[in-house]
Amino acid sequence: MGEKKTTNIILFSGDYDKAMAAYIIANGAAAYDHEVTIFHTFWGLNALRKDEHMPVKKGFLEKMFGKMMPRGSDKMGLSNLNYAGFGPKLIKNVMKKHNVMPLPKLIEMAQEQDINLVACTMTMDLLGLQKEELLDNIEYAGVAAYLAEAEDGKVNLFI
Amino acid sequence: MGEKKTTNIILFSGDYDKAMAAYIIANGAAAYDHEVTIFHTFWGLNALRKDEHMPVKKGFLEKMFGKMMPRGSDKMGLSNLNYAGFGPKLIKNVMKKHNVMPLPKLIEMAQEQDINLVACTMTMDLLGLQKEELLDNIEYAGVAAYLAEAEDGKVNLFI
Amino acid sequence: MGEKKTTNIILFSGDYDKAMAAYIIANGAAAYDHEVTIFHTFWGLNALRKDEHMPVKKGFLEKMFGKMMPRGSDKMGLSNLNYAGFGPKLIKNVMKKHNVMPLPKLIEMAQEQDINLVACTMTMDLLGLQKEELLDNIEYAGVAAYLAEAEDGKVNLFI
Repeated sequence: MGEKKTTNIILFSGDYDKAMAAYIIANGAAAYDHEVTIFHTFWGLNALRKDEHMPVKKGFLEKMFGKMMPRGSDKMGLSNLNYAGFGPKLIKNVMKKHNVMPLPKLIEMAQEQDINLVACTMTMDLLGLQKEELLDNIEYAGVAAYLAEAEDGKVNLFI
Repeated sequence: MGEKKTTNIILFSGDYDKAMAAYIIANGAAAYDHEVTIFHTFWGLNALRKDEHMPVKKGFLEKMFGKMMPRGSDKMGLSNLNYAGFGPKLIKNVMKKHNVMPLPKLIEMAQEQDINLVACTMTMDLLGLQKEELLDNIEYAGVAAYLAEAEDGKVNLFI
Repeated sequence: MGEKKTTNIILFSGDYDKAMAAYIIANGAAAYDHEVTIFHTFWGLNALRKDEHMPVKKGFLEKMFGKMMPRGSDKMGLSNLNYAGFGPKLIKNVMKKHNVMPLPKLIEMAQEQDINLVACTMTMDLLGLQKEELLDNIEYAGVAAYLAEAEDGKVNLFI
């Protein structure tokens, strides 16, 4: 009869390492029976992008943002020691050696564990991202939905 | 008779997009009847700077920091895709197109909604910022005041 | 008879200023009788590095990370206005002038106040950091231990 524990993470960052931290905490919390939501906003939306090009109609500004941002979690850079893409390669090598799951696998695992992956509709508009470009089986919501969950949350993080 | 819900945000970052996220969450929470505080520390203090030059006396080091930091929320850069000021222009254009409020308007709205805008006095000292340089009708406090509110907070975020 | 208040901070960032913020909040919370834990993960582990070189055996990749990362809290850079190491010097001068404790002192104070300084074992592996290279009298744990504490935390922050 205990109250349901919830973990709510806002993923604002588009960095590979920060997204990894978010998904590791989220998967851990789900394993401990928390109800978990990751609310992706701004650059964090890139973690939900499909890696192939999707033929959608966009205005000029939206096309530019689309080109400048990484297409999918595997192409995100590091927050530190990025060195023009060398850092991510280095860390992915070390991760393989130590059997740490790469980010795309962590996201798959989150979906298998029924973690709510939410895309912020306001920032999707802003960055010109459309539903066809994002992973299937995710949800779409705004700040009101986030707040409704966060106010009962045990663990609320902004990453 | 329900207990008052509170949202406490530490705004550490001096990035336009992160400050936007902080103020969007804060304004949303206030609309849902939360008591909301944004505690501005380090580079987050720049969001509270007036945009005009204020004639205050400063030491040499403080003057340097004053010159290096943006004067007011409208001049802050992006955390990502900043490209020497090009990114902010791009995103402000997209925001106008999508009717998203720019940061200075979000701050005005926060003041109208009686959100407590607090400037961290310790880091004001450190960065050489004086009260005359910051917006009117804000509060001044230290980490103790933050903790007193945060320990009863429903939503605590560090941005 | 009140319930014990707890503050749990994840220190992900390897920036001097962000680590300062984390330790100032932590020391403040401890002074107000909170039970405080700082969970150091990814680049945040650098705050726990000893400043001398420790003779440990490492693979090639781990050696590279070891060389690229700052050895100890005093050598960390700023998140903003770093200017190739000039920013940190500037801010340390201002700190001295205003009697603000430098980061290594804040960490010492945290240890004196019995704040739990925890190193994330998974990311230690990833970055090739060994126990001999980190400060004495710290703890070692993974995400499960973090979650167990955070779900009862009053103040949970990701920095």
